[in-house]
Parts: sequence; C-alpha cells; structure tokens
Amino acid sequence: MASTDKSANPETGKEVPPPKASYGDTPPPPPPPKAVDLFAVDVALRFLVFAASLTSVLVMVTSKQTVFRGPIPLKAKFDHSPALIYFVVALSVAGLYGILTTLASLSVIWKPIFSTKFLLHFAFWDVLILGLVASATGTAGGVAYIGYKGNEHLQWNKVCSIFDKYCKHLAGSLATSLFASVLLVLLVWLSTFSLHKKIPK
Amino acid sequence: MASTDKSANPETGKEVPPPKASYGDTPPPPPPPKAVDLFAVDVALRFLVFAASLTSVLVMVTSKQTVFRGPIPLKAKFDHSPALIYFVVALSVAGLYGILTTLASLSVIWKPIFSTKFLLHFAFWDVLILGLVASATGTAGGVAYIGYKGNEHLQWNKVCSIFDKYCKHLAGSLATSLFASVLLVLLVWLSTFSLHKKIPK
Repeated sequence: MASTDKSANPETGKEVPPPKASYGDTPPPPPPPKAVDLFAVDVALRFLVFAASLTSVLVMVTSKQTVFRGPIPLKAKFDHSPALIYFVVALSVAGLYGILTTLASLSVIWKPIFSTKFLLHFAFWDVLILGLVASATGTAGGVAYIGYKGNEHLQWNKVCSIFDKYCKHLAGSLATSLFASVLLVLLVWLSTFSLHKKIPK
Repeated sequence: MASTDKSANPETGKEVPPPKASYGDTPPPPPPPKAVDLFAVDVALRFLVFAASLTSVLVMVTSKQTVFRGPIPLKAKFDHSPALIYFVVALSVAGLYGILTTLASLSVIWKPIFSTKFLLHFAFWDVLILGLVASATGTAGGVAYIGYKGNEHLQWNKVCSIFDKYCKHLAGSLATSLFASVLLVLLVWLSTFSLHKKIPK
C-alpha cells in the first residue's frame, strides 16, 4: 500500500502535488486561481467603464463655447440640448456604477465564495447600464450629427461650422461613451462566460 | 435487496418515478421539464422581439406625409433623416435576429441536449442586439424630440406642428422599439438566470 501513496516524495520527505494519473477516479475541484484571474479582468474592465464615463462627462460638461459674430455673442453649452443633458446624466450613472462595481468585484477577489452570486447580479445590472449608455450615446450622437451635417429637408442648419471647439468636445465625448458601451458588452460576456464555466460538463 | 428496488410498482408492474426519500444519497439529475418551460418563455419573448421590431419598422416606413402650405408641397419621409435610416436598419436586423433565434430556441425545446451551449450563444448575441436597438431608439428619439420641441438656441424649428401624422408614426415606432429593448434585456436576464440555475450548489 505504501508504494501507491504518492502524496510524499520518499527522497525529500516533502509533499508533492498529486500526479495527473490520479484524475481518473475523482474529478479535481474547479481551480480557484482561474476564477480570480477572470475577476481581475472584471475589475480592470469595470475601472475602465468608470474612467471612460467620467472622461465622457467631463469633456461634455467643459464644451462651452462663445463665438462673436455680429452684435450678439453666440453661446453653445451642453445644457442647451435635452439630449445632451440626458447623455450627461446617463454617463454619470454609468461612472458611479463603474466605481461601485469595481469595489464589489475587488471584494469577490478577497472572498471568492460569493463569486457565483456576484456574477449573476453583475450580469443583470450590466445589461441595464449598457441599455442606458447605448441609448444615451445614440441620442447625443443623433443630435450631434444634425449639428455637424444639418438637415435640409427640415431646415435645421449645421452649427459645427460656427462652434468648432464645441463640436470637437462632443465628438470626443461620444467616442468615449461608445468605448464605455463596448466595455459593458465585454463585461456581460465575461459574466455569462464565467457562469458557463462553472457548469459541470 | 428486492424491497429497496423502487423503480417498479409491484402491483401494476409499471415503472414509477423514484420517490423523494431516495434524494439523500445521490443528487437527482436536473429536471428537464423546468428547462423546457424556461425555453418556452424564451421562444415567446423572441417572437415578441420579432413582432415588435417588424411593427416598428413598418410604422416608421409608412410615415410619409405631404402638407400643402404655400406654393410648394412640403414632404416628410423617414429617409430624409440619417438617424431614422439607422433606426430602420437596426430594427430590421433585430427583427431578423428575432425570428431566427425563435426557430433556434424552438430547436432547443426539441433537442434539450444543446441547451447550455445555446444559452451562452443567445446571451452573447442578445447583448449585441440590445446595444444596437437601444442606440437606434436613442438616436431616433433624440431627433424626434427636436422635431417635437425644436431647439431655440440652435434655431432648429419644431416640425411636428406641421407634420402631425408623421410625428404620430414616429412616436408609435419609438414606443415599439423601446418595448423591443426591454424584451432584449429580459432575454439576457433569462439566459443568465438559466445558466446560473445549472450550476450545482
């Protein structure tokens, strides 16, 4: 019987990990380091969502421009358009959500026992925030496009030829929020994939 | 030993399901009827996504209106606005996706063995289509809101006071696409929840 006991090396007396040949009888427990790795990616993506949302809001809020043409100075500000107000509110919510879930995801790395519950809740909320950010990006993008190109049929004039700096801010803010949307899609994919990995084959 | 064999009824000779008392030793296999029930909900939701997207596209495409004011008749059509063209394309894609995945989900009810793989793929694609539909709803909504309220600061006049029928079509189409977005969120939730249910506790 002693020859089959492979948990101790007879030469050094130290314990060695069980060899791969013993895998046939009982399945090995799911490796916890891999789960932590995925949560490290999760934390990184969530922090990027926070950073992208914050950047997007800051660039949008600082997009004021005043142009002097004719007797009255022309002003452009994000809160002149309800679409851009909605954009700022939505991205602020996404930023807050990003930093809160970064902390939540870090807590899972410390206590991996709740990882399954957290994955489910993350996936649920990520989808909602994705809907919010995607619709806000669309709303602001639609309005910004009219500002850039105008619409002849409806006689809405382009305004980006006058407010060049303002429109550059808008474009930067929109690009960042599109990036945040992509990150949120990746986060839902990661949560779903992690849940899928936990299902025994 | 014969008294412990509970798989056959000694009176009728027919097989009976194992009683609940035998659950203690070996965990029972996951009940397939429940999985099929969830897929029935899945099929229903997917068909609703198809129906909502198709309705939304049809209402938008039939939103033509010609108004006779002054010498030249004024026309309003959805393809006068790039935002609404994007909306029609996105909702068409969602409708096609809806009907294709309805069939795929039906196939899982017939052959439940692939249910886990399908759940994962459904969740992956549903998230993408949700992003598409949410952004399209936002884009069209942002433009429609300017048409309804106008924007003084940018001197974009409201057009819904002239094109009343056209704007009613837009509103109906937007409400339906918002409904489709909600359905897609529910679908991702359902897939994630079903995957979560398959993880042994």
